[in-house]
Amino acid sequence: MHDLIQRFLNGERRALARIISRVESESPEGRDYVRALFPHSGKAHTVGITGSAGSGKSTLTGALAAEYRKRGKTVGIVAVDPSSPYSHGAILGDRIRMQDLALDEGVYMRSMANRGALGGLAPTLDGVVSVMDAFGFDYVLIETVGAGQDEVEIAGTALTTIVVNNPGTGDDIQAMKAGIIEIADILVVNKADHPGADVLVSQLQGLLSLAPAGTRRPPIVKTTALKAEGVDKLADAIDEHREFLKASGTLEDERAADARHQVLSMARSILLERIRESTPAAELDALVRRVAARDIDPYSAAEELASAVSHG
Amino acid sequence: MHDLIQRFLNGERRALARIISRVESESPEGRDYVRALFPHSGKAHTVGITGSAGSGKSTLTGALAAEYRKRGKTVGIVAVDPSSPYSHGAILGDRIRMQDLALDEGVYMRSMANRGALGGLAPTLDGVVSVMDAFGFDYVLIETVGAGQDEVEIAGTALTTIVVNNPGTGDDIQAMKAGIIEIADILVVNKADHPGADVLVSQLQGLLSLAPAGTRRPPIVKTTALKAEGVDKLADAIDEHREFLKASGTLEDERAADARHQVLSMARSILLERIRESTPAAELDALVRRVAARDIDPYSAAEELASAVSHG
Repeated sequence: MHDLIQRFLNGERRALARIISRVESESPEGRDYVRALFPHSGKAHTVGITGSAGSGKSTLTGALAAEYRKRGKTVGIVAVDPSSPYSHGAILGDRIRMQDLALDEGVYMRSMANRGALGGLAPTLDGVVSVMDAFGFDYVLIETVGAGQDEVEIAGTALTTIVVNNPGTGDDIQAMKAGIIEIADILVVNKADHPGADVLVSQLQGLLSLAPAGTRRPPIVKTTALKAEGVDKLADAIDEHREFLKASGTLEDERAADARHQVLSMARSILLERIRESTPAAELDALVRRVAARDIDPYSAAEELASAVSHG
Repeated sequence: MHDLIQRFLNGERRALARIISRVESESPEGRDYVRALFPHSGKAHTVGITGSAGSGKSTLTGALAAEYRKRGKTVGIVAVDPSSPYSHGAILGDRIRMQDLALDEGVYMRSMANRGALGGLAPTLDGVVSVMDAFGFDYVLIETVGAGQDEVEIAGTALTTIVVNNPGTGDDIQAMKAGIIEIADILVVNKADHPGADVLVSQLQGLLSLAPAGTRRPPIVKTTALKAEGVDKLADAIDEHREFLKASGTLEDERAADARHQVLSMARSILLERIRESTPAAELDALVRRVAARDIDPYSAAEELASAVSHG
């Protein structure tokens, strides 16, 4: 382990890859690596990029990484894919376009399966991000599919959260917008060359105008990621948000909020693990069957499980 | 409380509404209602309807409810919206179309905010669903936005999970499909009158063909929810899936799996609550600041928190 860490700290990409694999496997060894490397983290600016399927956020992530390379910055990318027993995330057309970046030493890209386990994605993702951070990348981009719990988790992991929207995706778009605007530090209208882009910008401005006075309104940036248009403005908006965080003294608050999220989600995983350790599988099965048969209600069953590990 | 339960059991909708509000507030009182009513649940067929924003699943949910009413069945609907401090889920165009249903005594509809709290949506949603079930609805439809953690949670709550797709939503659709096919009992191609619908059906068939031999392949149903086309076939497919669950003896397994999900997610919430109770806010703040300052790593901090409630 010591040797691998040494090679990691010397900047060996193969050591980075191996350590991330161990963190992803959620083994105790993986945790030890996160522990050991954590003191080296905290320098990267972490950027979450989220939006629904088809919003073009993979392409945007690639274009943003290319923009950073032009600016002489290094970039780590974590792409979170829905887990699949069939594809293992392999059917990813967009990723292919990123192969140019893959040959660049200043970029490191990693695809992560979203396990959907009860422990949630967060603890593992946080670990992978802090390892990338410790490796010394200037920016770590975290791309997630989904408009739900995952988005909220990304907002808890990244310093700057970008929500990618696109024109004309349908009727309940407003409902989605209302939910995600609260987590967005920057709003992107991608596919800005499509009809309806300006209408969407107006709609988003309308929603933003409902925000309470005195709160920061996220800027709206128009991009056409496929043509790399507007991506320089997006990079600027990210830097402006970082400056805003620093100047307003909220960068530290933000890092503390991220840490709180990280610590609580890890504590949750630890306790869930302890439940699994303390209650034999057969016992859990029997308890669950009793709930299914309506012999016992789920809260009472849950309290029984919780009491097996807790003295609360 | 006894009085309200009596009125609930007599079929008073106002009692149902009040009890659901209490369950939603996540108060100890809410839990007591779930506990008291749980023995009356387990008769409804629960159907999860999920898909990305703009897939038309709200319209489909309404059309499916209308179809069930034609068949003389009663329907409870829980719609999960992303939480928003601005809208509180109020900006929901689709919901307006459901107003016809709202006047029907055989339908009860409830919108729930997706809190995105660390405890997750699941415990509260499970409680609301089991209260609706106990009220005696033949079907309980659970509609969620999102392609991520929430979808997986819905699969853990509903007996039949429907994933709604639509033609031409973009480039990383395949990645999404791969992830959600594993949770789908029925695949719907909605907006079947749009160009590209048949291509999407072929793509989905292609993905399904990758499934391991011997596993049940979800049927693909084409609908045009806005015109209520194909919705009768969808209702039939749901009944077929229910019959499949019964005939294959997996209905009981499925109910046990749902119960397991429910119990573990509640146990997780209970333990998280105990962490919050056992660690004063100021202490948690100080710990989190130390993590943010890289004085201590997040795993060690999490273990400290977990140890405060656990003797594991």
